[in-house]
Amino acid sequence: MVKKVLLLSGVVLMWTITSAQDNSDAMFIKKIHDYALTDSKCHEWLRQLTTEAGQRLAGSQTYDVAELLAVEFMEEVGLENIQKQACEVNVWKRGIRETAYIIDKKGLKKYLHVTSLGNTIGTGVEGLQAEVVEVKTLEEVDKMPDNALAGKIVFFNRPMDPTQLRTFNAYGGAVDQRGSGLVSAARKGAAAVLVRSMTLSQDDVPHSGSAVYRDGVKQIPAMGISTNDADLLSELIKSIPNTEVFMRNTCYVDGKNTDHSIIGEIKGSEFPNKVIVVGGHLDAWDMGDGAHDDGSGCVQALEVLNTLKNLGYKPKHTIRCVMFANEENGLAGGRAYGDYAKNSKEEIHVAALESDAGGFIPKEFSFDADASVLEKYMKVVHPWFSLLEPYNLQYETGGSGADINPLKPTKALLIGLRPDSQRYFDFHHTTADTFKAVNKRELQMGAAAMTSLVYLIDKYGLE
Amino acid sequence: MVKKVLLLSGVVLMWTITSAQDNSDAMFIKKIHDYALTDSKCHEWLRQLTTEAGQRLAGSQTYDVAELLAVEFMEEVGLENIQKQACEVNVWKRGIRETAYIIDKKGLKKYLHVTSLGNTIGTGVEGLQAEVVEVKTLEEVDKMPDNALAGKIVFFNRPMDPTQLRTFNAYGGAVDQRGSGLVSAARKGAAAVLVRSMTLSQDDVPHSGSAVYRDGVKQIPAMGISTNDADLLSELIKSIPNTEVFMRNTCYVDGKNTDHSIIGEIKGSEFPNKVIVVGGHLDAWDMGDGAHDDGSGCVQALEVLNTLKNLGYKPKHTIRCVMFANEENGLAGGRAYGDYAKNSKEEIHVAALESDAGGFIPKEFSFDADASVLEKYMKVVHPWFSLLEPYNLQYETGGSGADINPLKPTKALLIGLRPDSQRYFDFHHTTADTFKAVNKRELQMGAAAMTSLVYLIDKYGLE
Repeated sequence: MVKKVLLLSGVVLMWTITSAQDNSDAMFIKKIHDYALTDSKCHEWLRQLTTEAGQRLAGSQTYDVAELLAVEFMEEVGLENIQKQACEVNVWKRGIRETAYIIDKKGLKKYLHVTSLGNTIGTGVEGLQAEVVEVKTLEEVDKMPDNALAGKIVFFNRPMDPTQLRTFNAYGGAVDQRGSGLVSAARKGAAAVLVRSMTLSQDDVPHSGSAVYRDGVKQIPAMGISTNDADLLSELIKSIPNTEVFMRNTCYVDGKNTDHSIIGEIKGSEFPNKVIVVGGHLDAWDMGDGAHDDGSGCVQALEVLNTLKNLGYKPKHTIRCVMFANEENGLAGGRAYGDYAKNSKEEIHVAALESDAGGFIPKEFSFDADASVLEKYMKVVHPWFSLLEPYNLQYETGGSGADINPLKPTKALLIGLRPDSQRYFDFHHTTADTFKAVNKRELQMGAAAMTSLVYLIDKYGLE
Repeated sequence: MVKKVLLLSGVVLMWTITSAQDNSDAMFIKKIHDYALTDSKCHEWLRQLTTEAGQRLAGSQTYDVAELLAVEFMEEVGLENIQKQACEVNVWKRGIRETAYIIDKKGLKKYLHVTSLGNTIGTGVEGLQAEVVEVKTLEEVDKMPDNALAGKIVFFNRPMDPTQLRTFNAYGGAVDQRGSGLVSAARKGAAAVLVRSMTLSQDDVPHSGSAVYRDGVKQIPAMGISTNDADLLSELIKSIPNTEVFMRNTCYVDGKNTDHSIIGEIKGSEFPNKVIVVGGHLDAWDMGDGAHDDGSGCVQALEVLNTLKNLGYKPKHTIRCVMFANEENGLAGGRAYGDYAKNSKEEIHVAALESDAGGFIPKEFSFDADASVLEKYMKVVHPWFSLLEPYNLQYETGGSGADINPLKPTKALLIGLRPDSQRYFDFHHTTADTFKAVNKRELQMGAAAMTSLVYLIDKYGLE
């Protein structure tokens, strides 16, 4: 028999599952995991969502298909009060397939792997051609004289830091180029922006994701470029003065539309007005199938309710599954739900758990809450991890999830599932984010981790 | 700043990297990880090995290519005493592509996804056709009367247990069917054996792997069948009495050949005759590219020496990289090295570390040693894990690796790297075990974990 030994401060402590809670909790959490790894439906739901809806950007017809499927899945589980919560979204359209190229020494077009950044405008069919200026930081651009970049294509090429063990930290350290590069560049007169893809992988896959214009600053087109082509372009700029790139895309915002977050629940037996939310976001970029981002989170959230129901557990609190609309380019779904929760006279939001970091092997929960209550909650949550440690689940305090963050004023405990992050940015916002990139068991174990925590919150509360 | 909190016995203990060793160790281990994630060569070596040699079964010409490449890599690192250690291997040949089918109700051939099990004989070109009898255990067969299975194809169809969180435990609980099913079946007169593939994935990919004949028991052909087809066949057997399957393969053992384990080292500055071995096995099944099994282990082992060298670390002990021959179907390389070590008058083997569980995110080290010394070693090793915990590395005692196990009589500390196992059996012994199935960062972090442990063993010793 192999026992896991953890070492703290030089003291040997043998880990025992039953150290903090009674054995029935350990047994139920084992049951949850057994169920997830045998009879759960989350992987099959993900297959259906990615096959029938696939890419499902806010305001699109495929998002409408995703709404229909989400309702179907909730009916299949037998949830109560299934409803659609409306929100207004911008309808961003990609237009024609993007093109970008450089002219090589033989006069041939060398095509670059690019993708328009979300929310951006296009060059128009005629395209634009201009000299490329490589920069590494927004600060570098901000310090330049006015009009220093007049008519130029600004190429943001600072890589994500590979030495970050958590790839989200590497992402956080580089993503300002994608989000705000086009504003900094436009202020200095630039015509367009190219941004090195947000990935630690060295490949030909360009990454999209939101870019944000600012009022009063000229809107210019922006594309992501693959890491291989970013390196190539950087080399060329060094060896050939005044290298020019041609860019063509026709993105535009096609007005507004009404999308819906899809909601269903199991009513609480003791505290029906006290709500535990578990969710993911139903929308996805118009690339790949949105399998990791965030089909996985949606089906895992629903699996929490499905598992509890099928194991015969009657929750004391209302357990509510929310599949949020429009996380990727507006957050209208999360904001609408937050407004609802803050204004509700009847309901108290106890906790909200979101999975939006891919369907990978679960590692940690990240806890957040209003500063006035976080410490109190952590004292309650804390001993539960003796029950979760056998499943390699640890915790930290920090952020939670974009869609549930608007719930902070309700003083709910906010929780983000944090799976192992090494592979996430191989897929994030790309054509590679497909169903087959999600491992069934990793997805299932994430769902089991979430179910286990929701069970503990429901059973013991947070007071 | 996020701090990781671990909970033991209800006591809150803040984790600090520097609890047990001085800060220079923590800093060096950070350097090792930084190096692995930026300048390491292991991923590029794996690309070369899988591209140039690819499948490299013992005794094959592609194994010869692998030997050449291994020497090249070691020369590139600048290792000393690069040598080839000979061992005699059986040359098993697969022959023609395997065929197996059932005849459906319309008289059409429904082909099954099958692969010959390693070391087995074939049916011959004419093939064999016989009624299928499904069984779940060896015991079930062993209890049958003599000749109960005369002329039949015995179909072992016990799935791996999906509720095992460690997939190697699920493998261990099912693999007797593949290893010994053909002996049990032959004893009752069976003509051939089909074995459900050793995987938790539901797919069309058949898995190979060793089967073992026993002296005095008739040799019969054996194939692995994909999980999808195993389920289909099981259904058909239930609905159509006397279902027959046709099988054709032409495997055979083509005599003996001499293969070599490839060895190189960095000579110890203080204890040149005290050796720390780090290795993987260079051979692979003749399917896929052997990228996870065990190209990953070989390049990670070499990366340990490469990293230490490039960080300017001068080991006290001799650090020796061994890429073992013939792990998959004979273990001749591991046995030959074990004999060498046991018989050596000059050298003392302090420790041996093998990576042979795929190039996935590292999680644990498993320690083993002769019972007379294990406890002593564990007391030494134990405090080191305060330095390794920030990298999510834990330990257990148990097995180590097949190739280093013959070193047990030397009283060396034997260590197996244990990466996360969820995806391993999606690839193991199949055509899917290719270079692109290995994530670069996961591979690199495994190498960094191994380097960190080897550094600590070298610096502090085990006495």
